[in-house]
Amino acid sequence: MSYGVDMYSWMKTLFPLNRSLSGEGNRKTLRFLQTLVPDIKIGEFKSGHSAFDWIIPHEWNVTDAFIERSDGSKVAEFSNCNLHLVGYSVPIDKIVSKEELLKHIHYVDEMPNAIPFVTSYYESDWGFCISKHEFEKLGEGPFRVYIDSSFKGSEEGGVLNFGEVVLKGKSTQEILFSTYICHPSMANNELSGPVLSIALIKNLSKAIHHYTYRFLFLPETIGSICYLSKNFKKMKKNIVAGWVLTCIGDQGTFSYIPSRLGNNYADRITKEVLGIQVPEYISYSWLDRGSDERQYCSPGIDLPICGITRSKYDIYPEYHTNLDNLELVSEESLEKSLEVLLHLVKKVESQRVPKSTILCEPQMGRRNLYSNLSTRKSYSTQTRKMMDVLSYLDGDHTLEDISNKCGIDLYQINEIIETLLAHKIIEI
Amino acid sequence: MSYGVDMYSWMKTLFPLNRSLSGEGNRKTLRFLQTLVPDIKIGEFKSGHSAFDWIIPHEWNVTDAFIERSDGSKVAEFSNCNLHLVGYSVPIDKIVSKEELLKHIHYVDEMPNAIPFVTSYYESDWGFCISKHEFEKLGEGPFRVYIDSSFKGSEEGGVLNFGEVVLKGKSTQEILFSTYICHPSMANNELSGPVLSIALIKNLSKAIHHYTYRFLFLPETIGSICYLSKNFKKMKKNIVAGWVLTCIGDQGTFSYIPSRLGNNYADRITKEVLGIQVPEYISYSWLDRGSDERQYCSPGIDLPICGITRSKYDIYPEYHTNLDNLELVSEESLEKSLEVLLHLVKKVESQRVPKSTILCEPQMGRRNLYSNLSTRKSYSTQTRKMMDVLSYLDGDHTLEDISNKCGIDLYQINEIIETLLAHKIIEI
Amino acid sequence: MSYGVDMYSWMKTLFPLNRSLSGEGNRKTLRFLQTLVPDIKIGEFKSGHSAFDWIIPHEWNVTDAFIERSDGSKVAEFSNCNLHLVGYSVPIDKIVSKEELLKHIHYVDEMPNAIPFVTSYYESDWGFCISKHEFEKLGEGPFRVYIDSSFKGSEEGGVLNFGEVVLKGKSTQEILFSTYICHPSMANNELSGPVLSIALIKNLSKAIHHYTYRFLFLPETIGSICYLSKNFKKMKKNIVAGWVLTCIGDQGTFSYIPSRLGNNYADRITKEVLGIQVPEYISYSWLDRGSDERQYCSPGIDLPICGITRSKYDIYPEYHTNLDNLELVSEESLEKSLEVLLHLVKKVESQRVPKSTILCEPQMGRRNLYSNLSTRKSYSTQTRKMMDVLSYLDGDHTLEDISNKCGIDLYQINEIIETLLAHKIIEI
Repeated sequence: MSYGVDMYSWMKTLFPLNRSLSGEGNRKTLRFLQTLVPDIKIGEFKSGHSAFDWIIPHEWNVTDAFIERSDGSKVAEFSNCNLHLVGYSVPIDKIVSKEELLKHIHYVDEMPNAIPFVTSYYESDWGFCISKHEFEKLGEGPFRVYIDSSFKGSEEGGVLNFGEVVLKGKSTQEILFSTYICHPSMANNELSGPVLSIALIKNLSKAIHHYTYRFLFLPETIGSICYLSKNFKKMKKNIVAGWVLTCIGDQGTFSYIPSRLGNNYADRITKEVLGIQVPEYISYSWLDRGSDERQYCSPGIDLPICGITRSKYDIYPEYHTNLDNLELVSEESLEKSLEVLLHLVKKVESQRVPKSTILCEPQMGRRNLYSNLSTRKSYSTQTRKMMDVLSYLDGDHTLEDISNKCGIDLYQINEIIETLLAHKIIEI
Repeated sequence: MSYGVDMYSWMKTLFPLNRSLSGEGNRKTLRFLQTLVPDIKIGEFKSGHSAFDWIIPHEWNVTDAFIERSDGSKVAEFSNCNLHLVGYSVPIDKIVSKEELLKHIHYVDEMPNAIPFVTSYYESDWGFCISKHEFEKLGEGPFRVYIDSSFKGSEEGGVLNFGEVVLKGKSTQEILFSTYICHPSMANNELSGPVLSIALIKNLSKAIHHYTYRFLFLPETIGSICYLSKNFKKMKKNIVAGWVLTCIGDQGTFSYIPSRLGNNYADRITKEVLGIQVPEYISYSWLDRGSDERQYCSPGIDLPICGITRSKYDIYPEYHTNLDNLELVSEESLEKSLEVLLHLVKKVESQRVPKSTILCEPQMGRRNLYSNLSTRKSYSTQTRKMMDVLSYLDGDHTLEDISNKCGIDLYQINEIIETLLAHKIIEI
Repeated sequence: MSYGVDMYSWMKTLFPLNRSLSGEGNRKTLRFLQTLVPDIKIGEFKSGHSAFDWIIPHEWNVTDAFIERSDGSKVAEFSNCNLHLVGYSVPIDKIVSKEELLKHIHYVDEMPNAIPFVTSYYESDWGFCISKHEFEKLGEGPFRVYIDSSFKGSEEGGVLNFGEVVLKGKSTQEILFSTYICHPSMANNELSGPVLSIALIKNLSKAIHHYTYRFLFLPETIGSICYLSKNFKKMKKNIVAGWVLTCIGDQGTFSYIPSRLGNNYADRITKEVLGIQVPEYISYSWLDRGSDERQYCSPGIDLPICGITRSKYDIYPEYHTNLDNLELVSEESLEKSLEVLLHLVKKVESQRVPKSTILCEPQMGRRNLYSNLSTRKSYSTQTRKMMDVLSYLDGDHTLEDISNKCGIDLYQINEIIETLLAHKIIEI
């Protein structure tokens, strides 16, 4: 079943919202995701509190912003494009000279049509982003700069929001998908991650899986740091593998961003699956990292998580500009990405490591799992296979290992596992 | 000194006894072994008690059993061959139609002369085993089926018996040999194991060895499970290597059945010794297992034990029939097997890992182990060798490792070890 | 700055002193070293006490010793050369026949000019060492043998002395240099070690280093055993690498004596540095050992220490004779040895493993370590390098590893480390 059309239409709805580290745009984004997956819970981290080394910033909201020429014409209108306003700009309503204005104007010299994405989360500042064409037509001052923004600290109930959904599996062991919701109107580097996550959730919800699946929708960096600061021990215990999802809706070549040490379980699975599904994939180095793998894999955290993208952030020219828009992504690309992610899931599921709960062989006869009459041929091929599989269920061998060792296909192995589980001979 | 003739004659004595999981035939077997090795202790596991996942079956004894035709002629007489009766058959004395009898008759279609070995240990049933020739001459019914068997639960003092002997060595570390005593009149797949064990015991008793040697005579599967359920922790601590002995009296090629993980110390020793002594040996896979290595190597147990046979069970046509008889085994084959087992023992002994009891070099001078006068030549070659050997006695290097590292032959190394032991500089 | 001239002149001062396991000559040696490095502490181990397996011998002092012919002429005068007297000779003043004297005379048959070095530390004996030429001119007896020596047990305040100096670094982790002070007038096999240690100390004292440096001046064997018996646990915890220094002032090829297991950190560093600095170096085996690596690397001790020499003890003909004198060593050789040792130090320092003190990335912005304005280019090359380096500071990667992984030279890495240390983001 295809979700390409759906994913693209969800992106269209989400595209105009003014996401940032915090604020109404983020809540609107999460509430729309809830209409697709009602189980998503919206959580919050309180502004002003600390998380590891960080102070959680105030909540930021914007009503309007623009630059107004003396003749009343406006430039850099927030209502036209939310990238025009530097993220976390302080409120201002002031007449300024051109000289002063220029200190607060950002454009991209080599891309005359592009409006860049600029933020100043952790230092009070204000600014506008415009295209070089607009910059050249700015005219002389004085200018009125108008920003109607507001900040809420913890006393005013300021928070950073995030979304989380857990699909309970048979096991408490978890697979994590983490994506972010902190970029305003950008498609590939932002919305591709959330909409693919939703499609994955819809797909995985059709059946109970072995593993528990957790999906996180966080503001980048500060969000994963906050989440880790509260959940790190549990994550260290439960997470078997995880992926950071971003920049995964365009037509670029699939790309793998390794974990810091490059050899965890997610790394291995990713290389195996991409090697088969998209053998032309690009393998980056940890030095090329840039998203939340920076936190998930930092020294002492070192969760088994890596990154997967199409065109990696930083690499494609439209990155962090208004040109990273709905034309850069496509239904087909999203559909293909979903397919690859489902292969990752399938691979992980096929590599579980159930474990016998009984020392020595179990008494299979009293469970009618083999004949109580012992003749020269009583041990059927089927029984033999079950005993062979059982003998490897030591919590070290994956089902795939066992399939290779015993020459029994995974389908049959799964049948045997179900039987052994039903008889409480093993646990997963 | 050769034990081939003795081993063969012991087999002749033991062959007619009606062994099973339990009963008088097993006790007679063990009592005869006691006449050869008085130190063998006869132990018991109580019927009805549990051992890991298993319930220990009732003790079973048989006085007589046969099928009688209307004309008074008898077939499948237990007194002629104890394989005629299905093991653990319930008592019966009843006239039955041919149709009903046939549900309880076992023969081997492709071997018209063979009486198969059939048991029903864990489900109440009765039955007879005959050759296909006898089957064809059975005639029409009705038949009288007569089985004078009895069962004893724990209240009636029912037990499963086993034999055990320990040859104390200098160390508490142990070498295990495990064999079984639960098959009625069969030679290769049963008696070869116990008689070789006895010959090994007689051989090893001639001197004090480094390791302690433990020999077990158990009913297969349930016996090793019972023994493990009571001794597992001690075994895990003490056992350095062990072998399951069965099917080791015929002329077949020597065969190695690996442990579950295939890389323990017994595996390594076995491959080294067979590779030199009988280079044509067959190396099976864990998937070919079938004897008590199934329990000793099960997940979580994982003792350093593997199997060694001539023609492996399941492989030779006479297996589990009355054709596995005294003609299948020979004095020469038993003698050759003993020789190979003694090479295993010798190898293990040569690979001990003694350990210095002293931090830093010991003060050899005050033990007169080297000259107290230090000149340019005072350090004799002999002293130098002793210090070199001593420097590697860290509990990690085997004597063989040290021989290779220092270029000193094993004979000299053993002399040095004896000296160091006598001076309490090392322990084994 | 060159120390070759100084080292040679210190040797000249130290050469005549009568060093042994203990006594006034050892204290004079240490006191002279204190004039060069005032921080050297003189410690002691009490005679008669035990250390691991050893009993610490009595303190031994000598006033005079000689053999006197009937005509009043003297041979083997201690006042001419302290090697004439067997170390730890008991006092005697007696007329003896030539036959009896010969039992106490040592010379080197194949080296007619050499006076050998002989000791009897652990058994009461007396003796004289002379050249073969002197031996041939000894004449007939009777002879007066005169030895004015004395022994002090613990009651009389007898001790074995040693010297120790610690150069505190930023870290409590230590680099050890161990050398010995127990040979009388010999230059290469004794004094080269202490004078190189002093030059190293002077060099290292010019700056605060990362590691703490500890230098030991011990009587060989018994000294290192005593020191280990009191400090082993602390050494095991703190010592990162160490070297035994002896026979390192002659012109022989540099030589490496591995640790017992041959693969510790000191082994690796030594092979790397010698491989680059003196590629023609000789790599010996543990079986060729002979100095205090015997104790530092003994089973259960196994400190990360190995040996480095020019012509190894035992190998050069002058070894343990009066021909191992000031002509055998040279300013140039000592200078070259110092240079190589400083390369070892530099290598170790470059391989430290600092560790992040913060989970997840630190908030660099509030420390002004990167721009708070996030634009498409805000992450400067310099910032990127800092974050890359920081991401590997997990306490497992050495600075050299990180240099290789990130392609940043060690100089820049050290600058980054200093910055991160100053901001308390990492610890060393």
